[in-house]
Amino acid sequence: MTGVKALIFDVFGTVVDWREGVAAEVAKTDLPVDAHDFADAWRDRYQPKMTEVRSGGRGYARLDTLHRENLDYVLNDLSLEMDEAGRADLNRAWEKLPPWPDSVPGLTRLKTHYMIAPCSNGSIAMMTRVAKFGGLPWDCILGADIAQDYKPKLGVYLACAEALNLDPGEVMMVAAHNGDLDAAREAGLKTAFLPRPMEHGAGQTTDLDATSDWDVVAANIEDVATQMGC
Amino acid sequence: MTGVKALIFDVFGTVVDWREGVAAEVAKTDLPVDAHDFADAWRDRYQPKMTEVRSGGRGYARLDTLHRENLDYVLNDLSLEMDEAGRADLNRAWEKLPPWPDSVPGLTRLKTHYMIAPCSNGSIAMMTRVAKFGGLPWDCILGADIAQDYKPKLGVYLACAEALNLDPGEVMMVAAHNGDLDAAREAGLKTAFLPRPMEHGAGQTTDLDATSDWDVVAANIEDVATQMGC
Repeated sequence: MTGVKALIFDVFGTVVDWREGVAAEVAKTDLPVDAHDFADAWRDRYQPKMTEVRSGGRGYARLDTLHRENLDYVLNDLSLEMDEAGRADLNRAWEKLPPWPDSVPGLTRLKTHYMIAPCSNGSIAMMTRVAKFGGLPWDCILGADIAQDYKPKLGVYLACAEALNLDPGEVMMVAAHNGDLDAAREAGLKTAFLPRPMEHGAGQTTDLDATSDWDVVAANIEDVATQMGC
Repeated sequence: MTGVKALIFDVFGTVVDWREGVAAEVAKTDLPVDAHDFADAWRDRYQPKMTEVRSGGRGYARLDTLHRENLDYVLNDLSLEMDEAGRADLNRAWEKLPPWPDSVPGLTRLKTHYMIAPCSNGSIAMMTRVAKFGGLPWDCILGADIAQDYKPKLGVYLACAEALNLDPGEVMMVAAHNGDLDAAREAGLKTAFLPRPMEHGAGQTTDLDATSDWDVVAANIEDVATQMGC
């Protein structure tokens, strides 16, 4: 893959297991819920909430803020009580997400040859804490905060390349979501897909396979490293 | 130092030896100059050039761009010839700056207890490459690009705290320059000073000692780590 100088990564689902991480924090509360069902309900509000910003109808607000609004919505929707301190604490579940087993070894290998950074809809504050929690060896933190907008808006991918002073074609987007790569390719980036068939639990039906001829199709992040010569 | 959750660092002079790094790259060219004198002349244009942006008279332009304009100025001032490719290559001297001997061990210790990041006037692109060159283990890259302005404007320190979702008082600015800390303190940050008596070479007369009662006064970054309980 000549010319690639940086790899940027989707994080939720691709690098870390958000569903198990959030469910683990939900299970520590007194909420009378199934922890995985609650995590799924919370995450179901993720895309529609970001659409408020993507559409231009709302100025950029960090994902930390959107997650909190979604938490309040889900608690209200389920008629559940939780005080302010409890809500603030639970909202930090999104900073405590375990990496998939191949993530740290794969990133560590890639870092020896390339610049590596998250290109996540999570904020710098959130992604920095996720990295410290899981030992993710990023060179810098890029993503929504840098662009003041949310993927899959093309400006987010372009802002990440620009922040690294690279042309879009010198940057490879790595994701477990074909839609993320559709947008990255449209922005001129190189693309790498890997499946995360348990991201949504045992019944997952989406993104089980590559749906296009991505530049790299890999089994996991260690395999991305292998295919990229690391 | 109760309540500190992140340490942010000046980089040029405090973490890396910009003068030796730039002089080493100048020495690799065919320029008929004393490499250290040339590095000093180049750096002398640093503050006045940033003032164009700080004053509001010019929109934010990355330090990479300002360095290049200053290089062109100095070459012209000394009536020296260099082609475009040579200038572009030499401008990357600012990405190849050796850390002081205590920097990597000190940062590595601090990283175990705190978030650590540069708060430099260098860009994300530049600071990411400086970190890879020297093995600086930052958690994320903050600084001028995040604020779209240059230190010592107070907004730069505040933007770094905000990006980490911390109050200013939860962030400590670490610098070898008293003026940087004056501004950081005015912005509400905690402050740590360490001297770098060779930053400007053997004849240095500035910033040899702390000129105020900074929260921490240390011998070097390893000593900052010791004093901060790491």
